[in-house]
Amino acid sequence: MRVDGREYNQMREIKITRNYTKYAEGSVLVEFGDTKVICTASFEDKVPPFLKGTGEGWITCEYGMLPRSTQTRKPRESSKGKLDGRTVEIQRLIGRALRSVVDLKAIGERTIWIDCDVIQADGGTRTASITGAFIALVDAVNKLDKEVNFEVYPIKNYVAAISVGIVDDIPMIDLCYLEDSSAKVDMNVVMTDKNEYIEIQGTGEDRPFSKEELTKLLELAEAGLNEIFMLQKKVLGEDGIRVGERRETEDEVNSSEQQQS
Amino acid sequence: MRVDGREYNQMREIKITRNYTKYAEGSVLVEFGDTKVICTASFEDKVPPFLKGTGEGWITCEYGMLPRSTQTRKPRESSKGKLDGRTVEIQRLIGRALRSVVDLKAIGERTIWIDCDVIQADGGTRTASITGAFIALVDAVNKLDKEVNFEVYPIKNYVAAISVGIVDDIPMIDLCYLEDSSAKVDMNVVMTDKNEYIEIQGTGEDRPFSKEELTKLLELAEAGLNEIFMLQKKVLGEDGIRVGERRETEDEVNSSEQQQS
Amino acid sequence: MRVDGREYNQMREIKITRNYTKYAEGSVLVEFGDTKVICTASFEDKVPPFLKGTGEGWITCEYGMLPRSTQTRKPRESSKGKLDGRTVEIQRLIGRALRSVVDLKAIGERTIWIDCDVIQADGGTRTASITGAFIALVDAVNKLDKEVNFEVYPIKNYVAAISVGIVDDIPMIDLCYLEDSSAKVDMNVVMTDKNEYIEIQGTGEDRPFSKEELTKLLELAEAGLNEIFMLQKKVLGEDGIRVGERRETEDEVNSSEQQQS
Amino acid sequence: MRVDGREYNQMREIKITRNYTKYAEGSVLVEFGDTKVICTASFEDKVPPFLKGTGEGWITCEYGMLPRSTQTRKPRESSKGKLDGRTVEIQRLIGRALRSVVDLKAIGERTIWIDCDVIQADGGTRTASITGAFIALVDAVNKLDKEVNFEVYPIKNYVAAISVGIVDDIPMIDLCYLEDSSAKVDMNVVMTDKNEYIEIQGTGEDRPFSKEELTKLLELAEAGLNEIFMLQKKVLGEDGIRVGERRETEDEVNSSEQQQS
Amino acid sequence: MRVDGREYNQMREIKITRNYTKYAEGSVLVEFGDTKVICTASFEDKVPPFLKGTGEGWITCEYGMLPRSTQTRKPRESSKGKLDGRTVEIQRLIGRALRSVVDLKAIGERTIWIDCDVIQADGGTRTASITGAFIALVDAVNKLDKEVNFEVYPIKNYVAAISVGIVDDIPMIDLCYLEDSSAKVDMNVVMTDKNEYIEIQGTGEDRPFSKEELTKLLELAEAGLNEIFMLQKKVLGEDGIRVGERRETEDEVNSSEQQQS
Amino acid sequence: MRVDGREYNQMREIKITRNYTKYAEGSVLVEFGDTKVICTASFEDKVPPFLKGTGEGWITCEYGMLPRSTQTRKPRESSKGKLDGRTVEIQRLIGRALRSVVDLKAIGERTIWIDCDVIQADGGTRTASITGAFIALVDAVNKLDKEVNFEVYPIKNYVAAISVGIVDDIPMIDLCYLEDSSAKVDMNVVMTDKNEYIEIQGTGEDRPFSKEELTKLLELAEAGLNEIFMLQKKVLGEDGIRVGERRETEDEVNSSEQQQS
Repeated sequence: MRVDGREYNQMREIKITRNYTKYAEGSVLVEFGDTKVICTASFEDKVPPFLKGTGEGWITCEYGMLPRSTQTRKPRESSKGKLDGRTVEIQRLIGRALRSVVDLKAIGERTIWIDCDVIQADGGTRTASITGAFIALVDAVNKLDKEVNFEVYPIKNYVAAISVGIVDDIPMIDLCYLEDSSAKVDMNVVMTDKNEYIEIQGTGEDRPFSKEELTKLLELAEAGLNEIFMLQKKVLGEDGIRVGERRETEDEVNSSEQQQS
Repeated sequence: MRVDGREYNQMREIKITRNYTKYAEGSVLVEFGDTKVICTASFEDKVPPFLKGTGEGWITCEYGMLPRSTQTRKPRESSKGKLDGRTVEIQRLIGRALRSVVDLKAIGERTIWIDCDVIQADGGTRTASITGAFIALVDAVNKLDKEVNFEVYPIKNYVAAISVGIVDDIPMIDLCYLEDSSAKVDMNVVMTDKNEYIEIQGTGEDRPFSKEELTKLLELAEAGLNEIFMLQKKVLGEDGIRVGERRETEDEVNSSEQQQS
Repeated sequence: MRVDGREYNQMREIKITRNYTKYAEGSVLVEFGDTKVICTASFEDKVPPFLKGTGEGWITCEYGMLPRSTQTRKPRESSKGKLDGRTVEIQRLIGRALRSVVDLKAIGERTIWIDCDVIQADGGTRTASITGAFIALVDAVNKLDKEVNFEVYPIKNYVAAISVGIVDDIPMIDLCYLEDSSAKVDMNVVMTDKNEYIEIQGTGEDRPFSKEELTKLLELAEAGLNEIFMLQKKVLGEDGIRVGERRETEDEVNSSEQQQS
Repeated sequence: MRVDGREYNQMREIKITRNYTKYAEGSVLVEFGDTKVICTASFEDKVPPFLKGTGEGWITCEYGMLPRSTQTRKPRESSKGKLDGRTVEIQRLIGRALRSVVDLKAIGERTIWIDCDVIQADGGTRTASITGAFIALVDAVNKLDKEVNFEVYPIKNYVAAISVGIVDDIPMIDLCYLEDSSAKVDMNVVMTDKNEYIEIQGTGEDRPFSKEELTKLLELAEAGLNEIFMLQKKVLGEDGIRVGERRETEDEVNSSEQQQS
Repeated sequence: MRVDGREYNQMREIKITRNYTKYAEGSVLVEFGDTKVICTASFEDKVPPFLKGTGEGWITCEYGMLPRSTQTRKPRESSKGKLDGRTVEIQRLIGRALRSVVDLKAIGERTIWIDCDVIQADGGTRTASITGAFIALVDAVNKLDKEVNFEVYPIKNYVAAISVGIVDDIPMIDLCYLEDSSAKVDMNVVMTDKNEYIEIQGTGEDRPFSKEELTKLLELAEAGLNEIFMLQKKVLGEDGIRVGERRETEDEVNSSEQQQS
Repeated sequence: MRVDGREYNQMREIKITRNYTKYAEGSVLVEFGDTKVICTASFEDKVPPFLKGTGEGWITCEYGMLPRSTQTRKPRESSKGKLDGRTVEIQRLIGRALRSVVDLKAIGERTIWIDCDVIQADGGTRTASITGAFIALVDAVNKLDKEVNFEVYPIKNYVAAISVGIVDDIPMIDLCYLEDSSAKVDMNVVMTDKNEYIEIQGTGEDRPFSKEELTKLLELAEAGLNEIFMLQKKVLGEDGIRVGERRETEDEVNSSEQQQS
């Protein structure tokens, strides 16, 4: 029995609230139990220098924690004047995860800024961020799609993430803070809804882990992620991703107009 | 008639939600219309170097905006590696305002960290921050009071703040972002519930302002602030500040116990 | 009787020395008693990004203190690698004050850099800076005017500043360092020579202040500022600001030349 | 056939040169083909604040690249004034990997600094760093062991790392720069010589990867790592790790001396 | 004939004004023609970590230029957040020069901060700084001597500095800005009044220089420095350095008092 | 007799290894005894802002030390976020030395980046850096020469550097770390192979030095440098600098082709 009464393979209640704030193109509050993250997606009409003139776009992520999202106050990174290593690692992970499901050519020379700000942290903030940021991304892409009518719909897959780990020699899913801080092995799994891996990061800082444990952890993650994909699809409803949706090019539109007339 | 239909002397709807997050000693969501700020108060058992050994405490404030709390994305100060001037100015103002109503000797050698993080910005974030942070401060002080039983209750007055300004030559209260950006004169007023001033900051960057206009602006502010003080007291209910509440010292407790026996 | 023998409404001796150093377009040493500040105004032929292409100019201020301008040595901000909050607050105040009396369209796409460097600090450095920097600004604008013959003379008003405060419950003007450090209430007033306010910043960190005290402080400030305006005008002499001076445009010049021929 | 003529499961030639520089307690040049990294281990007689007084030690890693270790010159991080995200990620990985095989209690309140400086980069610098830094660590620990005679020998396992990846849909091991830059999937595997995992980091930024591919990549890595462990043991020779070696405590020494006399 | 009419071996008029500002223990305005530098010396009752507990003191220098001390405005180093290389080089030079004539044991565990702030720059600011800072140092040491009565008078020699250089193939002394910017060879010479060298820094960035030229430059410098030493001694008058002055220890004082009684 | 058995006028063994790493246009390992520095020269097709459009090139140097190149670990400057003063001083010196022997017009609007990274430090790292970096520079220039066929061969002289100093009142050459740390006087001499000075930096921080000592030190340096120039020329062999080599311009080529046909 886990500290909060869950089964070893039971995730906390997950909530995804769309349109959480009013300015961002996509804005989501994602909750995994007491872990709460505001995820926004913003379009900018330029790309980093290494992409200028290539016709390709970019997705970049920034991650932060409110100072009192944690049990003891965490000094503000803006006051210290630099990001700590953990923040850098997390925002690079989120960025990679979202880029992996987007056709960067299809969005053209634009940058999508993903901001994940943790309001309350109870374990699993990086995996909650990926899960929630994906919804903000879809909303932002759809909003832009209405304006510019992308030739190719840019999002190729659903993506979500979950943490798994070994606590007291028992593999379990969706660790809360208490479990996380006593875990021997800690793993984050990012997957598409085709059940293919985007990223696996498993660390045995306290003790190494065996192949059998690895297999068990990956099974737990996959089962949990399939539940999350169902939730993501339900939350998006009609606004779900439209891979392969046929879009008429201007020529087709013209020719179809000619036929009709 | 104002852009959002209000009267010149009418504030937006103000909401104060206590215990908004679970870790901080005091945690408040304050809303002035679409302006939303999370304010937390945290105790730390040490003071800045200049107060070590004096027996006095300190209150310090940090202020931040989520990147997409604004209409266009504001680069994250932690990424730029430094605070911009506006942030510095605001957090100094909030800190002064709260220190002015607290007996710093009474809290002993402790620091109260006030964090104000803007989730959504629609004008007046600094005055909303002061108004909400005061409630977080009271909650935090009361929580500590239960543990340590302060000899002197440390909070001396209610404090709140409101913005006033001159738009199209008309003095008005509680400017939203649209009004603020076209205001000729801009003023922030911080007051105690005794209707005395803690801070007045009035700026006529676009044009100077006359003594008559100053008087009118101060009247508007005072009327609005009196409404806010009523709201603060209602929100706190039984947890309102207890200035002058008599606390028995250990000696008194002992002597009263002796008398009873 | 005040610590240095002045009356409550008496300012220290104020001296303004023009052309104090030889390179800057405007260069002034301003002294309020033992407070000494070098103020320079420099033109630069470009503007910050947000003004590019607008045809408008900008005025920006930087403020610094020599390490030993103060009683105990103040660590150099260039060595610490960042400005402290007080510096940021002051240079923003000086910038706003000077921008408020200049027609930024009239100076065209140029930046005027105002540098205020405190050589010796005995209270009131920010108000002395505004008062002196204004003279440096006028000298710089007049020098450029001779070269480019502005269509509209860019300076609209005289501007000066003075500190007032409440020490031992007595409102007084132009506080020296000793008075300033024991003041209950501290206020800086920036005015035009039309006796309209540019900026009022009053703070009661030690105790709140009443409406009557506010009125008294503003009266003291206004009387002092009127003396300062007289001094500024005397110091500038024939180089005083020339608001409304009619300038012939090129067309007028041509047409007048034609008439004469 | 790979770009440099290797088989899919063939690593480049690996060389480990001990005592490469003369000051560090442990100093190694590690080469994986043209990838060359200097790894040093240095003892310091203090620990980070969070460990003071616990009796435990710490291992921390810093990683850098010489500006011209790469094909085009990489700006120096010391000149930019901050580490880039990749550097932070790598040095955190190396630190975790080495800490995982060391009994931090056994080394007492000391810090072991691991420095990995890339002289020439041709893919796989982070895995080469872990592999080489482990040898430097053993040399440094053994040197200190001679001075202080640890009660418990602090190193528990051999540790090494290798990169694997999918290039042109073919899983392969020990990618060189050319392969790495066109890889679809990229994975770093850190293992102990018991063939248990310390860390798995697999990323499919270009396309997701299946369970079968994951299995294949892990098999490749394990086979390669077993070769590396043999090399590490050969290179260390008699200086290999001495887990479980019995050390007499002072009491035992005394009692054995008494018995002999 | 030089640009300002001087002979090749003629220095500009040098002025040294003592007690230029009121707070510093030593405060000097030094002028070499239009080059003007404020030099202050401040005592602090602690030393850098590497000297703690040694009983020795330290002298450290910081150097800055007011933004408009130069022909075109030089961005403020405090705003850029870092010192440029030239500043670092100069403040290290000044520090070395002054430390070389002071018995650091004699001043005990104290730091003397030397601040050199250039008000107006017309060539030779670093040599003027050394020359003026020495006087500030003497004043500060003498002031402290009156309080603590040093057992050994800490200053061992006079020190001053001058620039020489080769302009249009002619060696000359005390280059002004115009000469400096067209000089082929540039040299700064720091000497004691015993005519021994403290520091020679000669650079031929534009062309190399011969042994004969070196000899000629050093002769020019020595002649000029001897004039400067005379000025330094005249300016200090009775406050000149008191090397070898016999100071009675407490024991001697006691014994002499006993003899008298 | 010196600590390592050398004569007062004897340098340590000097080795120069060309093509030390594979990417840089010029790459050298230079060794003066146990002092080992990797020097690379890299071309970049742009120049600093102050040279844009002038047709001139630039040479800039960056210098670093591996953390464990020294006896006790030196904190990494990239982690501290800034360069220390010594580093700044050294990289400015190396840059000046190399620029002094290159015709910056001849290399066109290109920057040559010189990187000197100390692998092992045993005194004299800055002079070894200059000596080795010159060879890397020649290799890089020759490589570019083959591609672009410079109209004027850009390198005008050989340049090298050596340290001299006074230890125990004896002038000696090429001080190792032990000697350097007890030297009274320390001097670095940079010369061309024409035996003209590029830079002399002599410092008597511990005691002043006389004219006779200066003469002796310069003689020692010159003799040592002449040995070094012979080594540099031997190491370069056929790739030595080709000053004055006649290059046919395109016109000449054309006219010579016409004559032949």
